[in-house]
Amino acid sequence: MQFLEVGQFSPTDTIWVLVGAVLVFFMQAGFAMVETGFTRAKNAGNIIMKNLMDFAIGTLIFWILGYGLMFGSDAAGGDLGGFIGVPDLFLRGNYDGVFGAFSGSTHLIFQTVFCATAATIVSGAMAERTKFASYLMYSFIISAVIYPVSGHWIWGGGWLAQLGFHDFAGSTAVHMVGGVAALVGAKILGPRIGKYGKDGKPRAILGHSVTLGALGVFILWFCWFGFNGASTVCATGDDALRSMGDIFVTTNMAAASATLVTLIITWVRYGKPDVSMTLNGSLAGLVAITAGCDLVSPAGAFAIGIIAAFVVVFGIEFVDKKLKIDDPVGAIGVHAMCGASGTILTGLFAVNDGLFYTGRADFLGIQLLGVVVVIAWVAVTMIIIFNAIKATMGLRVSEQEEIAGLDIEEHGLMSAYADFMPAVSGSSYGTEAPLPALAASDKVTRSEAVPVVHRYEKPVGSDVKITKIEIITRPSKLDDLKIAMNSVGISGMTVTNVLGHGLQKGSATFYRGVEMDVILLPKVKMEIVVSKVPVETVVDKAKEVLYTGKIGDGKIFVYDVEDVVKVRTGANGVSALQDED
Amino acid sequence: MQFLEVGQFSPTDTIWVLVGAVLVFFMQAGFAMVETGFTRAKNAGNIIMKNLMDFAIGTLIFWILGYGLMFGSDAAGGDLGGFIGVPDLFLRGNYDGVFGAFSGSTHLIFQTVFCATAATIVSGAMAERTKFASYLMYSFIISAVIYPVSGHWIWGGGWLAQLGFHDFAGSTAVHMVGGVAALVGAKILGPRIGKYGKDGKPRAILGHSVTLGALGVFILWFCWFGFNGASTVCATGDDALRSMGDIFVTTNMAAASATLVTLIITWVRYGKPDVSMTLNGSLAGLVAITAGCDLVSPAGAFAIGIIAAFVVVFGIEFVDKKLKIDDPVGAIGVHAMCGASGTILTGLFAVNDGLFYTGRADFLGIQLLGVVVVIAWVAVTMIIIFNAIKATMGLRVSEQEEIAGLDIEEHGLMSAYADFMPAVSGSSYGTEAPLPALAASDKVTRSEAVPVVHRYEKPVGSDVKITKIEIITRPSKLDDLKIAMNSVGISGMTVTNVLGHGLQKGSATFYRGVEMDVILLPKVKMEIVVSKVPVETVVDKAKEVLYTGKIGDGKIFVYDVEDVVKVRTGANGVSALQDED
Amino acid sequence: MQFLEVGQFSPTDTIWVLVGAVLVFFMQAGFAMVETGFTRAKNAGNIIMKNLMDFAIGTLIFWILGYGLMFGSDAAGGDLGGFIGVPDLFLRGNYDGVFGAFSGSTHLIFQTVFCATAATIVSGAMAERTKFASYLMYSFIISAVIYPVSGHWIWGGGWLAQLGFHDFAGSTAVHMVGGVAALVGAKILGPRIGKYGKDGKPRAILGHSVTLGALGVFILWFCWFGFNGASTVCATGDDALRSMGDIFVTTNMAAASATLVTLIITWVRYGKPDVSMTLNGSLAGLVAITAGCDLVSPAGAFAIGIIAAFVVVFGIEFVDKKLKIDDPVGAIGVHAMCGASGTILTGLFAVNDGLFYTGRADFLGIQLLGVVVVIAWVAVTMIIIFNAIKATMGLRVSEQEEIAGLDIEEHGLMSAYADFMPAVSGSSYGTEAPLPALAASDKVTRSEAVPVVHRYEKPVGSDVKITKIEIITRPSKLDDLKIAMNSVGISGMTVTNVLGHGLQKGSATFYRGVEMDVILLPKVKMEIVVSKVPVETVVDKAKEVLYTGKIGDGKIFVYDVEDVVKVRTGANGVSALQDED
Repeated sequence: MQFLEVGQFSPTDTIWVLVGAVLVFFMQAGFAMVETGFTRAKNAGNIIMKNLMDFAIGTLIFWILGYGLMFGSDAAGGDLGGFIGVPDLFLRGNYDGVFGAFSGSTHLIFQTVFCATAATIVSGAMAERTKFASYLMYSFIISAVIYPVSGHWIWGGGWLAQLGFHDFAGSTAVHMVGGVAALVGAKILGPRIGKYGKDGKPRAILGHSVTLGALGVFILWFCWFGFNGASTVCATGDDALRSMGDIFVTTNMAAASATLVTLIITWVRYGKPDVSMTLNGSLAGLVAITAGCDLVSPAGAFAIGIIAAFVVVFGIEFVDKKLKIDDPVGAIGVHAMCGASGTILTGLFAVNDGLFYTGRADFLGIQLLGVVVVIAWVAVTMIIIFNAIKATMGLRVSEQEEIAGLDIEEHGLMSAYADFMPAVSGSSYGTEAPLPALAASDKVTRSEAVPVVHRYEKPVGSDVKITKIEIITRPSKLDDLKIAMNSVGISGMTVTNVLGHGLQKGSATFYRGVEMDVILLPKVKMEIVVSKVPVETVVDKAKEVLYTGKIGDGKIFVYDVEDVVKVRTGANGVSALQDED
Repeated sequence: MQFLEVGQFSPTDTIWVLVGAVLVFFMQAGFAMVETGFTRAKNAGNIIMKNLMDFAIGTLIFWILGYGLMFGSDAAGGDLGGFIGVPDLFLRGNYDGVFGAFSGSTHLIFQTVFCATAATIVSGAMAERTKFASYLMYSFIISAVIYPVSGHWIWGGGWLAQLGFHDFAGSTAVHMVGGVAALVGAKILGPRIGKYGKDGKPRAILGHSVTLGALGVFILWFCWFGFNGASTVCATGDDALRSMGDIFVTTNMAAASATLVTLIITWVRYGKPDVSMTLNGSLAGLVAITAGCDLVSPAGAFAIGIIAAFVVVFGIEFVDKKLKIDDPVGAIGVHAMCGASGTILTGLFAVNDGLFYTGRADFLGIQLLGVVVVIAWVAVTMIIIFNAIKATMGLRVSEQEEIAGLDIEEHGLMSAYADFMPAVSGSSYGTEAPLPALAASDKVTRSEAVPVVHRYEKPVGSDVKITKIEIITRPSKLDDLKIAMNSVGISGMTVTNVLGHGLQKGSATFYRGVEMDVILLPKVKMEIVVSKVPVETVVDKAKEVLYTGKIGDGKIFVYDVEDVVKVRTGANGVSALQDED
Repeated sequence: MQFLEVGQFSPTDTIWVLVGAVLVFFMQAGFAMVETGFTRAKNAGNIIMKNLMDFAIGTLIFWILGYGLMFGSDAAGGDLGGFIGVPDLFLRGNYDGVFGAFSGSTHLIFQTVFCATAATIVSGAMAERTKFASYLMYSFIISAVIYPVSGHWIWGGGWLAQLGFHDFAGSTAVHMVGGVAALVGAKILGPRIGKYGKDGKPRAILGHSVTLGALGVFILWFCWFGFNGASTVCATGDDALRSMGDIFVTTNMAAASATLVTLIITWVRYGKPDVSMTLNGSLAGLVAITAGCDLVSPAGAFAIGIIAAFVVVFGIEFVDKKLKIDDPVGAIGVHAMCGASGTILTGLFAVNDGLFYTGRADFLGIQLLGVVVVIAWVAVTMIIIFNAIKATMGLRVSEQEEIAGLDIEEHGLMSAYADFMPAVSGSSYGTEAPLPALAASDKVTRSEAVPVVHRYEKPVGSDVKITKIEIITRPSKLDDLKIAMNSVGISGMTVTNVLGHGLQKGSATFYRGVEMDVILLPKVKMEIVVSKVPVETVVDKAKEVLYTGKIGDGKIFVYDVEDVVKVRTGANGVSALQDED
């Protein structure tokens, strides 16, 4: 019978590693959904592309160069002083049986999917404002050099491995590397337009699909069983088989406790259990347990999850509010901070060597050292790389491109969701620059203080004319227009999303090779009804704010209104317009 | 060679069970997508959270308490009279090799994911109206006690198992337990607002993403191969290996025949093949085959699938129309009814023991007994638990919260889909309370019967004044307003979704820790053009309906209309407004 | 110990094949997401249903008939001249151990999921216009006969296999069969309404969710590791174990290089990197490598991916622009063209037998022969079948049904996304029939040439009357209305999506068995402001275009406008309406 024959490779080890590789590959889908779901619809296609290209480029360059830097060695015996592996371009060496009872190709695919995971973490933190070409350049470099070098130290038999540093499945080697690169990238890029107000306070920019974001988290949790479980790279012998089950339990336990504790923290701090932060909490637990999932007990995993919850909530707030780094999906808090924490916590909770069990701090010290040097390695190199990209190719899209969205500007994709009416503004829910503080009484007073000069004298229904002003303009001007209207004493208004018709010339856009004549363009319509505030004031202010001199500035229409009734007070006519709510 | 060494654990059994655990875990994603997709967008974040917390809480409490109640025994030998296992808090016992040739931790993770599946079934039936905190309490109790106790009877060596009750992968132990809890919960909760008209007839409330719902069904089908297939908990020896393939075939066969037959039934009954019911049909077949997938032939599975299709279609209609229990996703029909049916059908179709093959009814009798006692166990305990929760914490959100949506009310999430314009009403497609029966002729007559009193006398273009009334108010008032307008003889109207601007005070909302100043609020604009119906009548009626005395009641604007043309008849002026269509 | 016992079946082979089957099953989800995401929202439920029913029907008929035709043989020894297998209705034979060291049922489920993959490819190419019942008939026939027969030639020991034709996992047997059927089907169906302009040029019709489409691609890539990897149908012995890892590497490599090169090609050709074409590129690489993934080196796979990228981009353009066959998701380019190319390229790149390595063309010749005969087999039979279906049941929905969408017409599903406001037109982004060429100066001239006859003489604010015309009508008339308005000199307009209220009679629609009273219907509102163009001209033209004589033709309202301001020029009154932008 075939399955009794004895050979170089173990069938169960091979199956286990390949099933793990499949699951870790699928993390790409998880990251794509998390990053897309928690950012805005106008950049959805761009984020998808970054995730897809991360993996495509990573696959190729890790094969061509990275694998050799990480695992290459003379006759699989030595390396270049423990710092980098011997480059083996296009992987021509024979790695069969070197890293386990399986073929070299089995090891290559398993390591490729881990490499691509590190690269893809960064796209979330740099989302919605990074130039596509520059992102591809970054992605190429991290997979070619940055990840393989620190990976060699940890997993390739390098100096950290020799010291006894333990990072089982990559809290540091994968997640922290990605997370630190994310921190550097997001810092150098600067925040998205509208993220911080003039007062320096962060503003929430809601994601466009919490459901897809959540699906991404479920996918990642699912795949993490492969990420951690298959990192035994062995499924033979009682020790490995026991370890596989133990790792599943610790991985799941830390994720569960981190999820629950994050829920509780947000409930206490924000008054309500926060959906997207809790989803981050699950990932936080998974990242944190990854370093020590094979060394800690279920109770240790439970504790690590709890700690990760605190790290991620306060970490994300710290990045957002103190560092003022705009990380749209919380990648820095999840991957950098929980990756580092999890690696260090392994030094405390490891049953055999951890401080809490042995009272000895030597293992903890090595864990700390490893974290510090990998942070230093990634931070220093990425600062150089991102600044070099910034100085040459440029790192950030123009303001206009950012406002219009990267899908249309970078990819010619009119909309990733062509059949759905977009909300009036991508930032329609409370993310605006703050309005000038206008107490209700202020407004009335101010209105009354302005002499009532009516250009259009046609009394109807009452002795004071009521006029509707309808402004149709580009959506990107909505915020400015609202603030401007407020500044002349208008606070009641109705905003509608409409399509304006116009012949666009000279802006051919292609979709799958087919040229598109764009003839219906998104516009917003703002309707304001005034009586005391002069129509001229409103029209002049609107013209001032909306003028750019380019086609598409919009039009203002003026209509007569016969009467107005305010439902709450029952007042009609002019008094219905007092004290707007 | 490693893979020839003999040990306590089987590598293939371990791999098989762990791969199964990974797949069963991923059912959480499937349920989350099904339940979210088939309910409304305003509750999407809340449903996601319930699914996520189900699993997090279930993982923790099943480890702390549930596993022991289900599988615990003195020296893995006895239990407490076959009724419950010996509690083993925080699972300190050694279960290596007790339930198969794998470690105790392997068994724990496999059982944990099954437990969480039972819990999560309930969230669909109780969707869109259950208090979040109360749901967490329910979830805690089912995973801690309800599921483990009946699980012990069936799978833990308890009294049903000793009698010969056969529930291979959990038609009863998992699905029916979840489904019966769902039935009790949904009954005690009561239907969603608007689900039943004053005539007691059910109304359709459409889900917000059939695509995500379908993705969920595909995910569940995918995972079911792990759910049923890995329940051999063994992948060694010809019997187990043959059984694994057989189970894949029967599982898939029942799902396929149930899907096809559901399609046909809906085609015949409703005139068109129903999308969401057919998707439920797939799940029905999967639930029904789960009990006997190892005992029936492919032809038996085919037949079980056909029967499941009838059970699910007529079962869901029965729950909806006769029991008048509002189960938004059909969980009762799918999990309770098909779970019970599948378990009983195993008594008919099992090749070795079933009535159809042996002519003996003893096995069937035991299957029936098992179903009945588990229904009794779950129903009685859940009635007590849900009523206790209702009496203490309260089970249901307020009417206002339900209308506004649980995302904003329970989680402070303005929208799970912030970049998309919501439809004018979450219930815009035919789910409204019925309009008073107004035949077209009625309307005209009624309009004519009302003396034409015009408040604004300004003849234009014709000898009768035509006026537009524009009402801007909160979306939740749309239904009432439509009915009210109808009652004064107005049936033609245009409704637009708009955003109203207003400074909200004192309602700070947090998103990921960032405070949001909500300044653009969803509103609806209803436009009505009248000539014969007096403007005053319309305005007064609208004021009556919309008045709450709170900020946000809205405004009514009145405009002059110069002319109206009705395209179909070519009529203009007043006659264009006759016999509205 | 159990795992050392010797039996008929190999545990690792069985696990490997069953894990592969699970992954290949999940391709159904991938196809469903790709096909739904890249088509329009109004057909989403229909496409889901086609994918779901493909699999359900395929499962049943492949069991009843197809498997026997493909693999059946007398005592597993002979067949009917190598052309078809011996039918074995309901699979009553014993296939244990015949196709590997696993049970017959294991082989059945593995082959069933491959069969369903071939069938489901077609639904994408025929999307958005095929009758549902006719599609089911096609699906039945391909799974029952077409796929099994050519499958027998290739994998069932038939004449191509005997000649040495190599198609490891189905570039030809699965993908090209599906792709050629797709080509025939899409050709016979004809293009979707609006796909080709009067000038014969193709127009882009954007998909409704690039995100879900991308998720589908990630799912397919994930599953492809099972599709190709598990096609070893063996996981024992060093050769098989080495091959498994090699296949993972080549599969991933070709996908990566195809993705990257497609990106580059679209960047060069269209000016920007195209999102949906690049996603097609990934699939192209996967399809192309499938035939030879076990025979080529990583470098060979890299090259095959590059070639596949060119094939898919130019192939899709060729189908779209030259053949003028409307293939909404690019299935012909991906599956037919890359399937054929990949099979042929195996003849070039196979390390042992390929032309590039051996200089001999014999293997290449056999590969070419296989591709040609399978194309002939599928094309001839599918032309007969689709024409027979067309002549009897009809193949295409009516124009009205196509415009309204297949969800409502074929399934009674009001909307797959009931809570979201649809975009103003399903084709709102530049996919319209071209406007008559109106240079700006033309318009002004034409406007001036028309004598200014005002029906409503009421000078306000200036000496020329300005009037707003508001047209409310059914969304399907929007394109015609735009063109008509242009033809009378109107180019500035604002379009809003609204809901019109009307009692629909006699069109009961069911959702999950509940009758729906549809009372809010989607409408569009077009607002036009004119001064020089006479109101009568606009109204008369609109009436002409919109008239159908059926309820729902709409209404036209005329309002007085007091003033207009054009922001860019600052002009007001009549001059603000000149030279519309």
